[in-house]
Amino acid sequence: MNKIKTVTHVNNVRLRQDGRAVIILDQSLLPSKTEYLELEKLEQMCDAIFHLKVRGAPAIGICAAYCMSVLAARISDVEGMKSCCDRISDKNFLDMMQKNGEKLKVSRPTAVNLAWAVDRVMDAAASAAGDEDSLQAGASTIAEAMCTEAVKIHDEDISMCKAIAEYGLELVNPGDGILTHCNAGPLATSRYGTALGPILLGKEKGIDFKVFADETRPLLQGARITAYELMNAGVDVTLICDNMASMAMKNGWIQACFVGCDRVAMNGDTANKIGTSGVAVLAKHYGIPFYVLGPTSTIDPRCATGDDIPIELRSPDEIREKYFAESVAPEDVKCFNPAFDVTDHTLITAIITEKGICRPPFEISLKAATEK
Amino acid sequence: MNKIKTVTHVNNVRLRQDGRAVIILDQSLLPSKTEYLELEKLEQMCDAIFHLKVRGAPAIGICAAYCMSVLAARISDVEGMKSCCDRISDKNFLDMMQKNGEKLKVSRPTAVNLAWAVDRVMDAAASAAGDEDSLQAGASTIAEAMCTEAVKIHDEDISMCKAIAEYGLELVNPGDGILTHCNAGPLATSRYGTALGPILLGKEKGIDFKVFADETRPLLQGARITAYELMNAGVDVTLICDNMASMAMKNGWIQACFVGCDRVAMNGDTANKIGTSGVAVLAKHYGIPFYVLGPTSTIDPRCATGDDIPIELRSPDEIREKYFAESVAPEDVKCFNPAFDVTDHTLITAIITEKGICRPPFEISLKAATEK
Repeated sequence: MNKIKTVTHVNNVRLRQDGRAVIILDQSLLPSKTEYLELEKLEQMCDAIFHLKVRGAPAIGICAAYCMSVLAARISDVEGMKSCCDRISDKNFLDMMQKNGEKLKVSRPTAVNLAWAVDRVMDAAASAAGDEDSLQAGASTIAEAMCTEAVKIHDEDISMCKAIAEYGLELVNPGDGILTHCNAGPLATSRYGTALGPILLGKEKGIDFKVFADETRPLLQGARITAYELMNAGVDVTLICDNMASMAMKNGWIQACFVGCDRVAMNGDTANKIGTSGVAVLAKHYGIPFYVLGPTSTIDPRCATGDDIPIELRSPDEIREKYFAESVAPEDVKCFNPAFDVTDHTLITAIITEKGICRPPFEISLKAATEK
Repeated sequence: MNKIKTVTHVNNVRLRQDGRAVIILDQSLLPSKTEYLELEKLEQMCDAIFHLKVRGAPAIGICAAYCMSVLAARISDVEGMKSCCDRISDKNFLDMMQKNGEKLKVSRPTAVNLAWAVDRVMDAAASAAGDEDSLQAGASTIAEAMCTEAVKIHDEDISMCKAIAEYGLELVNPGDGILTHCNAGPLATSRYGTALGPILLGKEKGIDFKVFADETRPLLQGARITAYELMNAGVDVTLICDNMASMAMKNGWIQACFVGCDRVAMNGDTANKIGTSGVAVLAKHYGIPFYVLGPTSTIDPRCATGDDIPIELRSPDEIREKYFAESVAPEDVKCFNPAFDVTDHTLITAIITEKGICRPPFEISLKAATEK
């Protein structure tokens, strides 16, 4: 009878029983259709990531880890059928998997979890392979190690989301109005989500909030996914267009902003869905705390500041045509369509990770969180 | 060969040759269809205004003035056919027109020009009627006076737009990036428009700008109309989603914001399309001047501050369904859908009217402009 459980524990990304496919809930069809896709081949996997069938940085990471596991298992199946002398060496196997990993990584350039998850699974593969080439049954052993690592990434994400939700809940009061942008709920991660974690965990504990969900143009993740997840969980949610956030804040309806993150630089600059920086500017103007919620895996030690974060530019058609019954703009009008923007660290009140609440100066607090 | 002329001088609102219909370009169908509607009856007129077939505060004012003229002419036609003793008195005629005017006024509550234009035409009617009831040919004489006044309102708007454009042009430099929200171009007004006036007048004078047009959810006037008008005029225009304005500003692409206005309070607080206040907050944060452009008729002496301006709330379907091939949000999700917001006067660099550039303190400069 607990509505939350049926929603937050939806299996958005999982391994098929036989380990030879990743099964994902196709988020590009929500809210009108609930359909699952079985990803068996690299092309299908890259396509699913690029076309946002699986989306949300942590969910992409989990998916990519399972994808690597599936590809490894499928190669080892073929290897098992070959005669002994035809078998590839561990090194060749690792090289093949490395190439697959690189292809997965370039499906979307901004989310750090994608590359992070691929690298983690590859590290596990390398450990399993050991220092020397072995000639017998190497591929299947390595593939098993990769699968174990992928499952571990998934389990860790569930624990992380729960921890983030607990920390986030400390920052708000019952009945608060919370504005969120894009979607960082269970479908974008694993259970609870990140930005929606405190809200869903609160619901489980009997604490209610009034949530305002930005629709999040152009791909409408707020309308299609956040509103869907929160309504199903019985949360009081009001959908607004992105440009209505200023009025909602001015009206005194918002006590905190909760957003997710796709990549956090070491100084606290945060890449998240396009429009996040605008919400942060508004929050600062209206004196409302602005919180970023995400796992420490989203913090990228290779990025000193937001300037180091690559921003993905996407097709003009997403603005002009996608979702619409007919084109809503002149056919050949020039469009600027960045998928993300970088919110300056000076606009962020705190970054909430599974290791705790990081406050400015972020150089120190984020470093501490990543080293814990 | 001058592209500008063919575009800015489009007849978005005009009186039919016989004076018995208002012909409008149906803006709700742009950019895919260019269709004209003939409005003969009060219900059609109210519907056209409510459903944004004619939109933009000045254009609504011009349209409403012509509507009053058409309704008056049609009543006087009927009167002309009646026998002498059946004829209504001027007073009854004025009462009927007053009622028609009230119905027109409530089609949209926020734009001050609507009520202002209706009242002006009614004042002209009252003057023509004189102090006493006349029994002969009164209706047609009064109707003629109303028509003359409506044409005058239209002509004045054309002059006003030109003057606003000239003043606005003083505030920017060739090559500047200009961000605009919603549509305050020729289709929303008469020739040149208000917010787009300096850009279109600049184009005529060989001065080029780089315009960024917010798409302006939920009704997409920026995508559908601003982009359409500017492209047709040969202006360099880039369409962005509303939530991308922050990034465009951060990138240093915007040197000024030009927006229109639906109602300006005496302290400078300005009601304009929802999202305008957010653009103003962003502009202030990034140190970019924010200009409001509109005729003095938009300044409402009855509103001391923005708190006195009624804000129209519209249907949730505009957010969830309109324009989309299928619903983009859960069917019964709660929505907040204000048509306008109020931009605080502290966020506005200057208000540009046909009488000149008003700068803070607005209590003084706006008062002076309205009394000129």
